[in-house]
This record gives sequence, C-alpha cells and structure tokens, in this order.
Amino acid sequence: MKRYLSVIPLEEALTFLKHIPIPLCVDTVPIEESSGRITASPVFATYSVPEVHLAAMDGIAIRSEDTIGASEQSPIRLQDARRVNTGNVVPPEYDAVIMIEDVWVDGETFTIRKPASPWQHVRPAGEDIAESEMILPSLHRIRPSDIGALAAYGITEIPVFGFRAGLIPTGSELVAPGIRPGPGQVVESNTRMAASWLSALGGTCTRYPLTPDRSDVIRDVLAKAAGENDLVIISAGSSAGTKDYTADVIAGLGEVLVHGVAIKPGKPVIIGKLGKIPVIGLPGYPLSALTVLRELVTPLVRFSGIPVPEPGIIPARLTSTLHSDAGTDEFVLLSAGRIGSSWVATPLSRGAGIQMSAVRSNAYLRIISPLEGYEAGENVLISLTVTDHEAEEAILVTGSHDPVLDHLSELVRHERVDLHSSHVGSMGGLIALKRNDCHAAPVHLLAPNGDYNIPFLEKYLPRQEIDLVCVAGREQGIVSREGLSIDDLPGRSFINRQKGSGTRVLLDHELHLRGIPKEDIPGYEREATTHIGVALAVKTGEAEAGLCVYSAARALGLPFVPVAKERYEIAIRREHMEDSRISALLGAIRSPRFREILRELGGYDDSITGVLRQVP
Amino acid sequence: MKRYLSVIPLEEALTFLKHIPIPLCVDTVPIEESSGRITASPVFATYSVPEVHLAAMDGIAIRSEDTIGASEQSPIRLQDARRVNTGNVVPPEYDAVIMIEDVWVDGETFTIRKPASPWQHVRPAGEDIAESEMILPSLHRIRPSDIGALAAYGITEIPVFGFRAGLIPTGSELVAPGIRPGPGQVVESNTRMAASWLSALGGTCTRYPLTPDRSDVIRDVLAKAAGENDLVIISAGSSAGTKDYTADVIAGLGEVLVHGVAIKPGKPVIIGKLGKIPVIGLPGYPLSALTVLRELVTPLVRFSGIPVPEPGIIPARLTSTLHSDAGTDEFVLLSAGRIGSSWVATPLSRGAGIQMSAVRSNAYLRIISPLEGYEAGENVLISLTVTDHEAEEAILVTGSHDPVLDHLSELVRHERVDLHSSHVGSMGGLIALKRNDCHAAPVHLLAPNGDYNIPFLEKYLPRQEIDLVCVAGREQGIVSREGLSIDDLPGRSFINRQKGSGTRVLLDHELHLRGIPKEDIPGYEREATTHIGVALAVKTGEAEAGLCVYSAARALGLPFVPVAKERYEIAIRREHMEDSRISALLGAIRSPRFREILRELGGYDDSITGVLRQVP
Repeated sequence: MKRYLSVIPLEEALTFLKHIPIPLCVDTVPIEESSGRITASPVFATYSVPEVHLAAMDGIAIRSEDTIGASEQSPIRLQDARRVNTGNVVPPEYDAVIMIEDVWVDGETFTIRKPASPWQHVRPAGEDIAESEMILPSLHRIRPSDIGALAAYGITEIPVFGFRAGLIPTGSELVAPGIRPGPGQVVESNTRMAASWLSALGGTCTRYPLTPDRSDVIRDVLAKAAGENDLVIISAGSSAGTKDYTADVIAGLGEVLVHGVAIKPGKPVIIGKLGKIPVIGLPGYPLSALTVLRELVTPLVRFSGIPVPEPGIIPARLTSTLHSDAGTDEFVLLSAGRIGSSWVATPLSRGAGIQMSAVRSNAYLRIISPLEGYEAGENVLISLTVTDHEAEEAILVTGSHDPVLDHLSELVRHERVDLHSSHVGSMGGLIALKRNDCHAAPVHLLAPNGDYNIPFLEKYLPRQEIDLVCVAGREQGIVSREGLSIDDLPGRSFINRQKGSGTRVLLDHELHLRGIPKEDIPGYEREATTHIGVALAVKTGEAEAGLCVYSAARALGLPFVPVAKERYEIAIRREHMEDSRISALLGAIRSPRFREILRELGGYDDSITGVLRQVP
Repeated sequence: MKRYLSVIPLEEALTFLKHIPIPLCVDTVPIEESSGRITASPVFATYSVPEVHLAAMDGIAIRSEDTIGASEQSPIRLQDARRVNTGNVVPPEYDAVIMIEDVWVDGETFTIRKPASPWQHVRPAGEDIAESEMILPSLHRIRPSDIGALAAYGITEIPVFGFRAGLIPTGSELVAPGIRPGPGQVVESNTRMAASWLSALGGTCTRYPLTPDRSDVIRDVLAKAAGENDLVIISAGSSAGTKDYTADVIAGLGEVLVHGVAIKPGKPVIIGKLGKIPVIGLPGYPLSALTVLRELVTPLVRFSGIPVPEPGIIPARLTSTLHSDAGTDEFVLLSAGRIGSSWVATPLSRGAGIQMSAVRSNAYLRIISPLEGYEAGENVLISLTVTDHEAEEAILVTGSHDPVLDHLSELVRHERVDLHSSHVGSMGGLIALKRNDCHAAPVHLLAPNGDYNIPFLEKYLPRQEIDLVCVAGREQGIVSREGLSIDDLPGRSFINRQKGSGTRVLLDHELHLRGIPKEDIPGYEREATTHIGVALAVKTGEAEAGLCVYSAARALGLPFVPVAKERYEIAIRREHMEDSRISALLGAIRSPRFREILRELGGYDDSITGVLRQVP
C-alpha cells in the first residue's frame, strides 16, 4: 500500500524499521583491519598461551625437591639443573626456577644457599589463556589491545558483522564534486555524507552514478542496487512534488511502508523494502538527510544487530527560545560550551539547506513531539556530536561579526580551543554576556560621547566587572560595484545589517551627520547578518551598496570607499579571564601572526590590538 | 649519552617526548576517506552556496513593488512574473517568490490578492556559506556531516595530518601469526597492536619483517625504517639483558635519551632519536607494550600536533587492595561496572604477559608514583577503554568458575550485556556479594547438611535478601591422563584449586569421607583458579590429577572419573533482580539455547537449570 506523505510519529516509524532489519553479512577480515568492527561470532583459543611452562626470570631450572634443606650453612651443589633465560621453556623434569642472582655458578655446576618452593618463578602453561577458553564473545567492538591478544593466540582473521549499502543520488540538478555548479545546480553531497556515516557503522558502501529525475532510470538503478546490497538508500526525490519519483519507484518494485515521518528536518522520508532489503528514501535537503541518517538509519543498523555508539548527553541551558510544532519531533543543531561550571547551548540556523550549521555544531537538541518548544534559559538535555573532551574545548563568542573571527578561530585551534561564533550584532552580544550566555562578546558600539563600547557596558551591564580587549581598529566603508560613497546612497538599493549591530548604529550616526534620511535609501530594511553577507548581496546584484569592513569588500573583489574608523573590541567577564580558553583567545589576539593577518587582510589598525580596558 | 635503565619518572619522560615531536606529514586525501582525520590547514569556501538567489517554495518569481496594494478587493494581474519550483534560480529582475497556493493561474497570467514583501520565500545567495568564509579550521576532527558540507562546497580533497610509523618486531623467538608457536616461541603480536593503535591516531604504519636478536640485523632495519618513516618503534629487546640490543643499536645510529621509565608495566622502555625521527623501544611483554603505547607514544602523537581523543574518567570503588611501589606509576587493568547507582572496579591479573587482562578490561587505574597503593573500598578515578554506554553494559560476576560462564557471556551479548567474570572461588563470591562488589556470585558450596549454598548465605550474609538461580547441576570428577579415580590420588602429584573454592571444599569433603589424608597427596598446596587451569596442568604433565568439571576435562580431551554431583547456582541480591542486565543473564540461563549448550558440553544436569530459591 502506498502512503504518500501521510506522516506518522517517529516512534511508529522506528517500529516499522524493527520489522525490516538489514540482512547483515559476515565479513571475515584480517585482524589488522578489524579495529572498531563488531565480532559476528565468539572466538575461542585453539591452544594455550603459553603452551608449556616458561621461566619468568633469568636463572636455572631445577627440581624443588633437590633444594630442600639448602642454607648458608649447608649449601647444596645441584646435580641436575639447566640455565634458562626469561621466556625459555622450563623442561618437564623441572618444577621451579632460581634467579641467577641467588646461584653460585662455577662452570657447569650450580650451588644454592636456600631452598626453592615448587613452581617459583615459573609462568605456568595457560597462564594467559587456556585452550578452549573464549577470547571474545560476539558483538564485541574490537580494540587495538584485542588485536594484540588475537594475534598472540594465533588468530589471523576474524568474522565481523557488516552490510553492503547501495547509495543512489537522484536529481537532474546534481553535479559531481569538483564541478562548479551552474545557476540552479547543486553539488551531490548527501550520498557522500551517508557513505561516510554508514562506513563508521560497519557498512561497505557503493555509490551509484548521478541519476536524473526520470522514474524509469531510477527504477533500473534501484533494481540493480537492491540486487547488489543489503540496504539501499535513495537520495532525494522523496517528497510528493511532480518530479519526486522515489516513492513511486520503490512502490513499483517493492513496497512503501512509510512515506513521511513527523520529524523536522527530514519529514519527507520514505521507508520501504524490496524483498528483504530495506530501502530508505532520504530527503534532499542536507540537514534533512543528516537527521534521517541519525534518527532512522542508525537505529535501523542497531535493530539489525550491530551495536552503535551512542552520543554523550549533558544538561545545558538554552540561550534562546525555540518554537516547535506540537506533533513533530524537531532536531536543532547547537553550539554548546561550558561557561564556569554550567553548560550553555546556542541554537544554530535551522534552515534545512544550511550545512554550515552541522559543521559549526557540536551538539543537538531533540524537542519531543508533545512540546511546542523551549524558552530561553530553560535547562534541556543535549546530545554531543563530538567527544566530551572536545566539547570542553568550545568557547562561545557571541556578538558582532568580523571576518577576522575566522582567523582567530584558526589560531586558537592550535591551543585546542574550538571557537564558536554567533553573529547577533553588538547589542545581541552585550545581552548574551549579561545573561552569561557566552564567554566573549565582540562589540563596536559608537556612543554619543565618541567613545566605543564602555558607555554601553556601563548602561546595560551596570556594576559588573568587564574587561575589553581590543581586536583591532578597523575601517568601515561603502561596498559597491561602482565605487559609490556614502553620499551616493540616496536612491540606490541598499543592503543593511540587522538592528542592534554596531555597523547599523554607525550607519545611522553617519547618515544623521550628513542629514541623509533613512527613507531616501531603498533597502534600508533589508538585513544581512555578516559583513561578507553585505558584500555578497552587492556582488550578486541584490543591492547596489552596503556598509561593511574593508576586508569583506576585498575578499569579494569589490570597491570600497571608507566612511569611518572604529574600535572593535571583545568584552569578557573579568571572572573568566583566567579560563584557559579565554587565555588562548587573548594569546591569539596578541600574537605576531594575528598582526600579520590583519595587515594581509587590510583595513585594520593593529596599533591598538590587544589593548586591555577595564569596566568599571 | 647512553642511559641504561637509569629509570626516570613518567613526567620527566613526557618532557623528553615534548622535545622530539614526530615530524608530521600532510596527507591530501579524498574527502570520502577523511572521516576521523585531523585537518592540517583551514579550508575556505571558494564560492558562495547558493551562488545566486533560489526559490524556497514552488510558486512565481515577481517584483515585490508590482504587488503593492493587492487585496481581495483589488487583485492584481501581474504583467511580469515567472513560474519557479523550489531550488530554481530567482532571476535577477525579481526580488520575491509568491507560493503557488496564493496565485490564481490562468495560462500564462498570474493574479494575486495580497502584496509580497521583498525577498520573501527567497534563499539568498550565500545563505549557507559565502565565498571566502572558513569552512573548517585546522586541527578539526572531520565528521561525516562535515564531509557532506565539504562536498557541497566543491571541496574534493582535504589536507590532513598524518605520520608514517615504522614498526620493527625483534626477537629470535618470534613467529608470524598463523604459525603455531613451538615450545619457547611466541607469536609476534605487539607490532600488530601498535599498528592498529597508531592507525587510529592518523598513522600510516609499515611493519618490517621479523628481525632476530642480532644487533647488526636490527641496525640495518632501523636505518632503513628511519629513512622511510616519521616515527620508528622497535618492539622488544629494550631491557638490559644479554640479548637486548635495542638501546645499543639506537645509540649507535642516533641517540638514546631515556632508557627506563618508572611505570609498571613498561619500565624497560627506550626513548631515542635518529636525526629528527623519534625512536621508541617498546618492551616485549604485551601489557608493557600496551602501557607504553597509551602513556608515552599517545602523548608523543599529541605533542606532535595531532589532537588525540581522551578516555572517559569516572569515580569507582575498588573491590580489592592494590599494592604499588612508591616511585613508580603503576597502571592496573580493571573490570568496572555500575551496581545500583555507584561504580565498582575489580582489578584484573597484573602479569605483564597476560593479554587477556587487556581483553577482559573495560577500564584502567593509574596509581601515581607517590602512592603505595589503595585499600579495598577506596574510591578512585578510573579511565574507561570503552564508551560510557558500553561501560553501562557491564555485569560483574564474581565467584566460582565454570566453563559455561564463557557461553553465558556470549548469550547475554545479544542483549547488549557485557559479562565480566572474576574467578575467586565460591567463598570469594559470597564476600564480594556481601560487600556489593559484584552483581552476581556463582557458588557451589556443599554444607554439612548436604544442601548447597543456602546455609553459607544464611551464615555469611545474615538477614539479607538473596535469590539463588540454578545454572545447572554438574558433575565433578578426577581429571588425569591415565583415567585415575579419587582413590588413586595418594602418592600422585595433584593440582588443587584455591582456598575458598567450592571445588576444594568438595575435595576435602570427599577425601574425608574416604579417609584419605591431604598429606598423602603431593601438590595439594599447588593451586589453579579455574577448571580449565586444572585440566591444563594435568595435560601439560605438571600434575597427574586434579578435580574439575567434566566439560573442562573434555575440552582438553582428558579422561574423567566422576566423584560427585553438585548444585552450581548464582547468588544475586533481590534488589538487583529487576536490573535489565540481571534480567538478561537470567533470560540466558533459562533459554533453550543454553540447555542445548549444557548438553553439548556434557556433565551437566539441566533439569534444575533456572530454578529460583530465595534466602531467607
């Protein structure tokens, strides 16, 4: 029975998956290649290790009964003994080893002055493992130390669970990586992500060629893939639009069990089967595909019998309100970091096409379907997509954007700090700092007295001890394709920055100085959130002009006419100045390499870089 | 300067390692093969994604200014609009998209009844990433979701840090895996473990051929390996014995910086260099090699610039006292498990040759050098060698040994339970259960009244609610090479079990019944800790006879003469009977498959298998 986007709850979809496990295969692999794989059957020792008694010391092998009564007063000259080194066989006629330090050696004769107890300094046969004992059970994740033991016990290859996954990229708009996409084209990336994801779970992945949106072609590829694999994933075409053939094709060759699951992103997913082969229709938006891989395909692998590592879960305080539709399980990517002793989590952009949200995230939140979201400040349980230690490296930098933040991010990586920046404008940064929602807030707010930042900190964070560290002086100016100046703006289409951004405050100030009314600037209400975003809107023709820093205009090769110089500083609570991550950030700002970068980028004044100002 | 086993503290050895970083190489790998690798340089976007504005909905692209004033009362028939589907380019002359649901379509004309705001339903160019922005910094561990993004942004290969590691196995006693070692021979396993270990850290490993204990040969191989690699590890020959050439060879070609580090196991380690190539002399004992890999080589990789995952650390209560030499950092392998809400950790056998301790362990403890050990019951911090979730799977089974425990271990794996058994004998099991040091204690203690176990529980764990679940009735008997019976024992060399084991209690009982004095049995004091260990001692000729279960004698193909039948039960605190891991264990005992196994092994009575008895 076909079910076109008759959306079912996530829990119900998981129940469907339990009934169509992947028919796992058993790969017999050399032990050297088995690290991280899962044993498919128990492994037993076929001989004992050691197989015979070995000397545990350098010395002589003797019969303990021959040593009875030996003492300083009555030494015994042994009639029968044999020199052995550590690891040598203790011949069957002997039952103990005497350390060479306790033996008086004279040519081939050995004299001792104390008795030996039976089996002293002997590694008995089977001390490590005895013939017939189990080395590893099934379903064990093999570690390097296991591989050493397997080798020592004579095991050269080992059966591990695996599955063959066929991945079919569909879409007439797709081009292969390495080909620059033309307008409306997209680089095929989802099957590459899926292949990497499934390989980590023990899958051997085959990616089929790019397949156009033609149901006959998709049908042929699916039939072939189902014949060659234990699991098939068809990327895209999974929705119910006019060019979405995936569900029809699966239904034609096999059965569609589910079309549509109440998750976001990822709703238009298909769960089907061809014979015993499960077939998953992966939605085309990258973050939808990622969510389906994590929330449906990974459980399918687990249900099929392969233990799958689970993410670490920690409690964290949300920094912003998240609305969600009741009846839908929504998954939100996060930048999480420990501030003092508690964890905070900042939601990233939720657009299903924004892959950078996945790249920038180190965690995610599931908003279960009965809930309509969470309020800012609520404590939630989040799942980490990095290790606990890597999460500890995160520093949350929230506020004004500047292209140099990317470069600071790179510099602090060398101190094992992971810089997460959120571009919410200078005022947004101050609010985040006030709420303890970030470690550091980049700000450049021009006050009426001509100073930057301090008057705003005194007003919005009164009686709180804040340190300001200057990143650089920097030049803001008009970016355009034709070399426009600020006086040319009236009547020109403009791209502005968001309310609360320092750049917008600066624009308003400069327009006011020149007596230019905002109303004369078409597009004044159109907002970008970064300097690069402004420059890009100009480059693509969306706007004729915008206000941004020189480095952004230069990065996109656009003319730049200076308007003003300003002080771009990072505000940090004084109590956090000793945090090693903050120290790394300050070290990066004050490093010679950062000054070089500022000069290479252009438009920055490094004479005030690193200067500390304290409030109050 | 040579330093032969002039042992230095671990911290000092780490300082030496900081000064000889591995000269890392940069491997440029296809992104598909980059998962888990570490970026060697930042990666920037060379074009924006999307590069042009795209429709975010199916509908029509329009100029928003053309829609001003549209309403139900005064619909507007648009003169200029274009049909677009989601993902299509919005041509430059348009600035918004109206959803098809809101458009009255009549052939090529479109009528709307409400105005559109500028840029509605448009995915702006650069929404995901803008040209020149950083995708990933250096030193980032690449995840599958990163690979998806890299592909989408046109990146096909990526520079990652790596190093070439050359591994030289030395020792004339070595044979290759797959060859059954003769007496005194050992299968070469340490370089396989090291290769697997280093591969996980980004190393590309070359194992050189088995190299005999000849300094000229080792020298030639080392010279070759140093020329072909960024790091060289020489396995074994690292001590100061007469056939230990490793230090001399390193000193001859380069420099020995350290010979001997105060760690146990692993003391006879060598740290040296050839030019800029660090050379590590790995001790030959497998657990010494493992400790050096973990405590010295892994930090060396980290110091060299590759971030290395760190183990999870949890607090746990030690179940037994550990003595350690002050001045030495000692590392003890552990079986750790959560009992109720607290974690307990049981030390495993500490012999440096016992690789099974590494296989059985899921954690380890570092006893820092100033300490002389820990008392049983002390709380310590332990490091996990499995994931947190995998550690949660552990069930600690402490007490009497039986070969069927291996089979139960295999059966419960299918319920994701990880059975750790410690063979301390029945009395040891009761003590562990009393202290809450285990989940379950296998016991078979014959009481004077002829019953098993219950009288001992009443005596040693009075007023505590214990459930006894019968594993099986089983037959104990005399194992020998010649078919001896218990009456043949006087004058025969014997292998006994440890004090407190039920088998020893049974032996004493049976000897008493027959009036055979212990003094008449040579070897009565010689102890093995498992049934298989007893059978093996008989098989290797160490003893002529022992008392064990039928399955152990049969596993080694030895004659067995029955002595008595007994009740082998598992004691569990009633409060733990609902624990899912205990349920899995009981399920395994009561499964049809387990009865089959009992019959296949022989010597068991499955008629009482699974029977529950309660105390009190």
